Amino acid sequence: MNMERKAKPMGPVPQGYAADATGMLLIGGERADALVERAGDTPLFVYDTALISARIADLRAALPDTVDIHYAIKANSHPTLLRFMAGQVGGFDIASGGELALAQASGMAADAISFAGPGKRDDELTAAIRAGVTLNLESERECARAIDIADAMGVRARLAVRVNPDFDLKGSGMRMGGGAKAFGVDAVRVPALIRQIIDAGAVWQGLHIFAGSQALDAASIAETQASTLALADQIADAVGTAPPLVNIGGGLGVPYFPGDAPVDIAHVGSELARSLSQSALAQNGATHFAMELGRYLVAEAGVYLTRIVDVKQSHGEDFAIVDGGLHHQLAASGNFGTVIRRNYPICIANHFDAPATHIVHVAGCLCTPLDKLGDAVLLPEASVGDLVAIFMAGAYGASASPAAFLGHPAARELILQA
Amino acid sequence: MNMERKAKPMGPVPQGYAADATGMLLIGGERADALVERAGDTPLFVYDTALISARIADLRAALPDTVDIHYAIKANSHPTLLRFMAGQVGGFDIASGGELALAQASGMAADAISFAGPGKRDDELTAAIRAGVTLNLESERECARAIDIADAMGVRARLAVRVNPDFDLKGSGMRMGGGAKAFGVDAVRVPALIRQIIDAGAVWQGLHIFAGSQALDAASIAETQASTLALADQIADAVGTAPPLVNIGGGLGVPYFPGDAPVDIAHVGSELARSLSQSALAQNGATHFAMELGRYLVAEAGVYLTRIVDVKQSHGEDFAIVDGGLHHQLAASGNFGTVIRRNYPICIANHFDAPATHIVHVAGCLCTPLDKLGDAVLLPEASVGDLVAIFMAGAYGASASPAAFLGHPAARELILQA
Repeated sequence: MNMERKAKPMGPVPQGYAADATGMLLIGGERADALVERAGDTPLFVYDTALISARIADLRAALPDTVDIHYAIKANSHPTLLRFMAGQVGGFDIASGGELALAQASGMAADAISFAGPGKRDDELTAAIRAGVTLNLESERECARAIDIADAMGVRARLAVRVNPDFDLKGSGMRMGGGAKAFGVDAVRVPALIRQIIDAGAVWQGLHIFAGSQALDAASIAETQASTLALADQIADAVGTAPPLVNIGGGLGVPYFPGDAPVDIAHVGSELARSLSQSALAQNGATHFAMELGRYLVAEAGVYLTRIVDVKQSHGEDFAIVDGGLHHQLAASGNFGTVIRRNYPICIANHFDAPATHIVHVAGCLCTPLDKLGDAVLLPEASVGDLVAIFMAGAYGASASPAAFLGHPAARELILQA
Repeated sequence: MNMERKAKPMGPVPQGYAADATGMLLIGGERADALVERAGDTPLFVYDTALISARIADLRAALPDTVDIHYAIKANSHPTLLRFMAGQVGGFDIASGGELALAQASGMAADAISFAGPGKRDDELTAAIRAGVTLNLESERECARAIDIADAMGVRARLAVRVNPDFDLKGSGMRMGGGAKAFGVDAVRVPALIRQIIDAGAVWQGLHIFAGSQALDAASIAETQASTLALADQIADAVGTAPPLVNIGGGLGVPYFPGDAPVDIAHVGSELARSLSQSALAQNGATHFAMELGRYLVAEAGVYLTRIVDVKQSHGEDFAIVDGGLHHQLAASGNFGTVIRRNYPICIANHFDAPATHIVHVAGCLCTPLDKLGDAVLLPEASVGDLVAIFMAGAYGASASPAAFLGHPAARELILQA
């Protein structure tokens, strides 16, 4: 009877995960149940730094040597993870005064940190200027505020301009450019602002051009990168000075959902090399280039482990209730930035390679119908005490979820390092 | 030029708010700017207990005297607010071990607290049984676990059964019943479970029947309440014993969005009186009845105050960037349980009664396009330093939002008491 209903597909389990001889999911070579024991309890996020290193190595191999990789720490700013990331990438991008403190504690050099964000308060500008990080300016008014604060401190602010480009990243999950936006300065006004920065005696650090994120189509990403480099050339021409750094943004998505496929980074890299060969700034040699990536670096390296507290039937359908939920993994419940709820990849961790024979709804422990982690997913039979793993949990998980909602304990987090 | 574009409507400003002679929004009779000064800074949630008292008084006047009012503390569990609510309602409904501790600290009597939630862990069951609160059982298995734990402690557990009714609440924002659900026990299996409870020597406390929430149509609510009472009668007949309490659930919505109108509670109350007159349990007199309400009691009593950090233009459109955002008020950004984003009621607090002349996008300070608090809303001209108030912030605000996301400070909260 169970199989007469139709299972709903789930996203693909990411590379790098396998079972041991008993069928137990291994994360970083360790058994999921042993990791839970080590952490003390479920719910638990596990982040495997080896997968992050491998991801960065693959990306470096695909990208031209002249393009550095920066990490947008909003994706996952766990202090231990940040210390690891500080040794892996060329810079950090931050988005608040709180993230500034985290970035400083990580060991990343201040001059490799840049701070974007449309609503920076005076205390944030002050802290950033004092720390010597670069401000990615979001408006002319913010520029004036930063220069005033730096003048009052008797220092020179390091200022880059965040550009709102006239194009956007096609197929991106989140558009950051194209048309009227809260982010950055419209491209047409950027040269005048840069001249103001230089005239004011501040240190002009360059451009931040971020057209969108979470795109999977390599051709769209390549097209956007070509437009981004052309725009940087235009702005530099208009200003008459080469920007020290052009942050060309991110955009590389990860496959969360059924039908999603990983980005063809070889194609992105070769097209980016071609675009750089046509870029006057790149050929000039005075400008550094960086991509700013968040979830692409860390999402697939994280697994959210929960334990089944109850299994029950209702009107002939099976439910497995776990001790985690949307208070830790809001995005997996379909309630954060997605219009249509779809299933993240999910498994019974202690039966990772067993045949999937049962259709089950995996519900979180919260007393709200929003707390759905797996909707009619096909899994091995689920029993109380089983561990349920939800993949793609390395980015925008613990920190991007309403942890205090309904008064449940915070999730534990474990960072696996070689 | 600004007015050539079209403003998008916003929800209605709730009753109870007005401006002083200077145009400043008053909350609980106090100026919004004075409240910010008292709290120390924005962003700030202000909860006016006088509005909550008035709401409860209106509801008591509308409802039959035999129906008590319980508060579902998940809506807003701020400790100070809970101490106030403990003196206002007949019981608390909780959803976790954390909420149990909050409810106990509020002064609410243990025997007036009931605990629902589909994934209660053993430690939560133990704490609840030790405290003497009622468990709203969500499954036969949970019943067995609770009885085992109570037996091991040498006490009698207080057990009610959460019923998954065969009907749902039409027009409800969140359906809790009707068809296969993670919540409760299918109605057909409830009598057998109650007999098990009684046979095991536990204290049977009654029924919890919650068919949906956030409905605005009084006729739908009344119809559901009639069905709920009929179902309670059927179950009592099958068991042969009257339940001490029937919690008939909540369902009363509040108007968040354009076109929403308040529930006609006079109609709900008179129809409920009629349904009770047809209820064998109500006529028998051995059963108490209660409605369990969360957002209906507190949502409109809360205001989220933020300050404009920047105003800017992009492609001819105006943006006001505030120091708050979805990390405090996720629901207002349209990212929590809503498919289509619509505008909550919003105002410039220091120009509350000024003519609305400008179309502006009110964006939060987070570096993500999801952080939109007002989309093309018509407001008085907005300037840096102005206070922006977002109404309907008393329920599912601070505690239901990803506070740690992007590392900004937590919102302050101020409870106004007479």
